[in-house]
Amino acid sequence: MLISDLDTPALVIDMDVMERNLTRVSDYAREHQLRLRPHTKTHKIPALARKQLHLGAAGLTVAKVGEAEVMLDAEPDDILVAFPVIGPAKLQRLMTVAELTRITVALDSKEALAELSEAASQFGRSIGVLIEMDVGLGRVGLEPGPAILEFARAIEACPCVTFEGLTFYPGHIRHMDHGATAALQAVSELVNGAVQLLETNGFEVRVVSGGSTPTLFHSHEVTRLNEIRPGTYIFNDRNTKDLGACSLEDCAATIMATVVSTTVRDQIIIDGGSKTFSSDRAASGEASFGLVLDAPDAHFAKMNEEHGFIDIRGAGRSFKVGERVHVLPNHVCVAMNLHEQVYGIRGNQVEQVWRVDARGKLQ
Amino acid sequence: MLISDLDTPALVIDMDVMERNLTRVSDYAREHQLRLRPHTKTHKIPALARKQLHLGAAGLTVAKVGEAEVMLDAEPDDILVAFPVIGPAKLQRLMTVAELTRITVALDSKEALAELSEAASQFGRSIGVLIEMDVGLGRVGLEPGPAILEFARAIEACPCVTFEGLTFYPGHIRHMDHGATAALQAVSELVNGAVQLLETNGFEVRVVSGGSTPTLFHSHEVTRLNEIRPGTYIFNDRNTKDLGACSLEDCAATIMATVVSTTVRDQIIIDGGSKTFSSDRAASGEASFGLVLDAPDAHFAKMNEEHGFIDIRGAGRSFKVGERVHVLPNHVCVAMNLHEQVYGIRGNQVEQVWRVDARGKLQ
Repeated sequence: MLISDLDTPALVIDMDVMERNLTRVSDYAREHQLRLRPHTKTHKIPALARKQLHLGAAGLTVAKVGEAEVMLDAEPDDILVAFPVIGPAKLQRLMTVAELTRITVALDSKEALAELSEAASQFGRSIGVLIEMDVGLGRVGLEPGPAILEFARAIEACPCVTFEGLTFYPGHIRHMDHGATAALQAVSELVNGAVQLLETNGFEVRVVSGGSTPTLFHSHEVTRLNEIRPGTYIFNDRNTKDLGACSLEDCAATIMATVVSTTVRDQIIIDGGSKTFSSDRAASGEASFGLVLDAPDAHFAKMNEEHGFIDIRGAGRSFKVGERVHVLPNHVCVAMNLHEQVYGIRGNQVEQVWRVDARGKLQ
Repeated sequence: MLISDLDTPALVIDMDVMERNLTRVSDYAREHQLRLRPHTKTHKIPALARKQLHLGAAGLTVAKVGEAEVMLDAEPDDILVAFPVIGPAKLQRLMTVAELTRITVALDSKEALAELSEAASQFGRSIGVLIEMDVGLGRVGLEPGPAILEFARAIEACPCVTFEGLTFYPGHIRHMDHGATAALQAVSELVNGAVQLLETNGFEVRVVSGGSTPTLFHSHEVTRLNEIRPGTYIFNDRNTKDLGACSLEDCAATIMATVVSTTVRDQIIIDGGSKTFSSDRAASGEASFGLVLDAPDAHFAKMNEEHGFIDIRGAGRSFKVGERVHVLPNHVCVAMNLHEQVYGIRGNQVEQVWRVDARGKLQ
């Protein structure tokens, strides 16, 4: 099948670019002896998780139990659930997953720890725990310092759970050009301090898991870090590019759309809006919903659910109803979540049709 | 099953409120002799479309062919595809749907008209056409005036398509308090002028289809309007309420979430973010992602895919990990699209589990 045979809107993935992205990070991790546990929330496709494992990933990362269930298809040795698992329904499902692969959970509360330990005891499982640490984002995580030590002791005191180490997400470092070196140095000091405090008190810190997409290739600069869990790197997106973490040539995923109306002067409407791209804004905060590759100076200015409004005043060209446009989405993870299936392309050929099996796994 | 037995995040629909909303609009349409053709993009569930038809809806509205395919389950006499259907793949599928129910399409371009007529001829179908008219939103549609007449003549000249009338969406009228009466009066004049121009030139304008959620109960004030196709009214949402088009008591759909982290001062994190609520902002444009019903003065200030950040400084109360919160989503249509299934509740009982069959139908 040719790309031109696909109906729109369609999310297409350039497999050459994707494979280059996968190899680059796999090589980087190997070179710096970092364990690679990719976050599968970006692609949500077991076949792609399998590719990551074949290239040397030591395990997988997920956000939800439902994603872990789907990712079992990739037969990972190990899954990290990088989100607190709360409540009996999810914990019971997690214990079923834990029968089939090793499970580690990132936690920051004694409530979640107690529930996890109880479920693990009840089902006779052993679950690893990473302590979630807040290194500056202010989202989840304990403050580096005495709270970490206290929590490690609490884990040690609970049956059927094992303290494995620390995890953090430096999501506050957005752009590698803007004072990021100093910010990353500060993170490194916090991490190092927390590890030392734990070791001084007799804890073995086997895993120090961290990093983010913008800081990815600086991960080796963080003292004691031994595991990375990037997600977006497989495809990259407009925000990754705008934040300086990749180039346009590294962006593998594009949404192909059709011009459906041109009646309003200086504007075209395409057959995809917030249901196709998501309403995530540009990294700058600007109401700009994707980069139109056919006319980079056009402005994807507004969206309704099914309508994308593209201001073509800067485009330097006109468009006709029925013509196709190719848009680099702002945020590929949420875009993937909106598509039932996506297409792997090489040249002008459609080589793969992938169902996005882990999309919509909210629980 | 009790609501408390549901895992989170879960989208729950208060069936008493929903039924009251359905009856109210059904009664309004009957009272004013307006044909009701509800837009199913809000609920995306054939069982709810069936309820609308039982309450007197004359047909259904959809945005995409994929939604029309799903909505055949509700056995409508008539489906309006309120979006230009472009390209052979979609047109072929539309012709299959047209074998089972009467199809009307809203169009604004000769390119789309030619394609539709050709497909209808090829498959031996007769398809109705409404001319899409721009009454001020600046999205799609022809300008009221000579362009409308010219397009009606073009339809008449094409085989297997029939001119049915006009359609418009006054989406530029957002808040019924702010100069909306004058704006609606202007719309009414445009519509009336267009109908008269067509009639003077010998066209019978059987359908004049229009309206929006904020203007819903003012539809009878638009001269010559004889059909409404509201969507959001079945559930309503925070934006409908904020725009003054319903009260809080009319909001039927709530997202139930769990507090998963409280480590950051004055903030709680819930287990749903942009993958659960969508990243659609409040109607005001403010970065506020839903109304926390348990603490209306808390501020749902930020989102990542799986994390909802709620600033609880104004909440006047604290929250514990594991506690549930109930959030009125900003925009229920896009929220529905993110959930595999939703729950119909009455009192504290779960009465229905509905699969959201038309979610993700992008084509």
